[in-house]
Amino acid sequence: MASTSPLPSVAYLGPRSSYSHQAALECFDPAKYTFEPRAAIADVFTAVQAGAVAYGVVPFENSTNGNVVFTLDLFCDRTRSFRDTFVCGETYLDVHHCLLSSAASLSSVARIYSHPQAFGQCENWLSANARGVERIDVSSTSKAAQIVAGDAGAAAIASRVAADVHGLRVLAGNIEDSADNTTRFFVLVAQPALRAPVSKGHGETDKTLLSFTVDHEIPGALCDSLKVFKDFGLNLTSIASRPSRLLPWNYVFFVEFVGHSDAQHVQAALDELKKYCLNLRILGSYRDEQRRRGQGYRDSERRVAGNGKAS
Amino acid sequence: MASTSPLPSVAYLGPRSSYSHQAALECFDPAKYTFEPRAAIADVFTAVQAGAVAYGVVPFENSTNGNVVFTLDLFCDRTRSFRDTFVCGETYLDVHHCLLSSAASLSSVARIYSHPQAFGQCENWLSANARGVERIDVSSTSKAAQIVAGDAGAAAIASRVAADVHGLRVLAGNIEDSADNTTRFFVLVAQPALRAPVSKGHGETDKTLLSFTVDHEIPGALCDSLKVFKDFGLNLTSIASRPSRLLPWNYVFFVEFVGHSDAQHVQAALDELKKYCLNLRILGSYRDEQRRRGQGYRDSERRVAGNGKAS
Repeated sequence: MASTSPLPSVAYLGPRSSYSHQAALECFDPAKYTFEPRAAIADVFTAVQAGAVAYGVVPFENSTNGNVVFTLDLFCDRTRSFRDTFVCGETYLDVHHCLLSSAASLSSVARIYSHPQAFGQCENWLSANARGVERIDVSSTSKAAQIVAGDAGAAAIASRVAADVHGLRVLAGNIEDSADNTTRFFVLVAQPALRAPVSKGHGETDKTLLSFTVDHEIPGALCDSLKVFKDFGLNLTSIASRPSRLLPWNYVFFVEFVGHSDAQHVQAALDELKKYCLNLRILGSYRDEQRRRGQGYRDSERRVAGNGKAS
Repeated sequence: MASTSPLPSVAYLGPRSSYSHQAALECFDPAKYTFEPRAAIADVFTAVQAGAVAYGVVPFENSTNGNVVFTLDLFCDRTRSFRDTFVCGETYLDVHHCLLSSAASLSSVARIYSHPQAFGQCENWLSANARGVERIDVSSTSKAAQIVAGDAGAAAIASRVAADVHGLRVLAGNIEDSADNTTRFFVLVAQPALRAPVSKGHGETDKTLLSFTVDHEIPGALCDSLKVFKDFGLNLTSIASRPSRLLPWNYVFFVEFVGHSDAQHVQAALDELKKYCLNLRILGSYRDEQRRRGQGYRDSERRVAGNGKAS
């Protein structure tokens, strides 16, 4: 590890006080890890791949606004830069957006800064309360808060934590369209051997993320691929696609299902799957934290590596 | 129609000189239609639904950067605002991005403005030639060109047409990552009866776009749905998904396949499909322009409605 700290480090999509930072703090015990912001999701992948950090935390999907395409594109790994980077954990963070400003009221606000995803998640509130106010996209909600700290005619959509960090007023709280606005983050690691071992007898479930392409000249190739999961009793939890960029209108598919890649029936399914798809890659197996959410996991031991074990 | 012009009008995602404007000019004869820019994709849908224009032109998908999620979200129609708005045509536009500036060389450029999709499509060139230069997201490439026209320290990623309109230098041409960088646009119409009739005996093919949800409590429901297309011999040409926003991690799926919704075998397939999916909606059938691209369609008669007929 290149870090000079005696503690292993965790890279996250920064800046400080970002939702990724909060997700990293959910997963790793601050007494045992140091945390390093990175300016872009690609920089987190690069730090993990190079061994400059022990883990990385990146956003993957939001319950209101869908997949984070930048993360999907990095998993596509079209330049083969991240061949040793795998997913070893996931975490879910409830996202509550606020309108922050140094102005005393919304009537003084002429511009709103935020990340495009955050604008997308607050569309209803903005349509009702800020119609005609200019919107300016910036790279993160925390960056937006930083910008408006010096601009009394502007507001930011960001977290309550960002208001504290940048000394801003909360003009409106919980302005997200859906009360169930949750972002899912992945924990990245560079060594597949570090992936969590198969949980046995704990009543817990694992999930596995795959990427693959299909021969688009063969009609029904995607259907044949998905049918394998059904035939082997593997329930799909997520499906997404991105352009392969090798051929126009040719796609990389991402499929997540319940099961660990080490389990015998999963390995049998993957062997079958290889008959129907190309470039199959196992991106990682990890504990299903979504099912645990109703079980008070926040109070349980820190996950992924907080107790010094891989699971 | 609310338009005061004697000619029927076509709304497109503006401003003038945008790629949507170029796509609209590809589809409709300027001698027979007037063209109206709209500030947002939602505004194009609204104009079509309200009958304020005869047609709308919106971007749907880019071959390098994937689906335009704003358009998908409007097709989801979660607020039931666009129940009479359908797709009646498609067109493909080759997209060549340029770096435009009033500066004489790249070395004077401290900021680059563009749409997030355009940044995504020029990632390789930017990494090699403009590392460390600040990137500022704006709502369109043409807006970016407009902004930098008055800022000698800035550049825009936009079209060559935008350079002419705003009097900018082309510092670098064709900077997109993929030589096959193509954007697909949909033509919207408010009356499903206006959709193109089934082509018979012309050797042409039609495509149909559907949206549906599946009961996420039923394992394999998506697989069962996709299998129907295979069983009825309908080849899928596109699949996409967006969060339903009704329940977290519940999705609206978009499937496009070869065939017209009026054709007998397609209607049989749709009847079968209804057994496996919820909220099935036919978003339109239209002539497959992708297959026609190699056949010199640019020189052929204007499509969709340019010759006064629906096809």
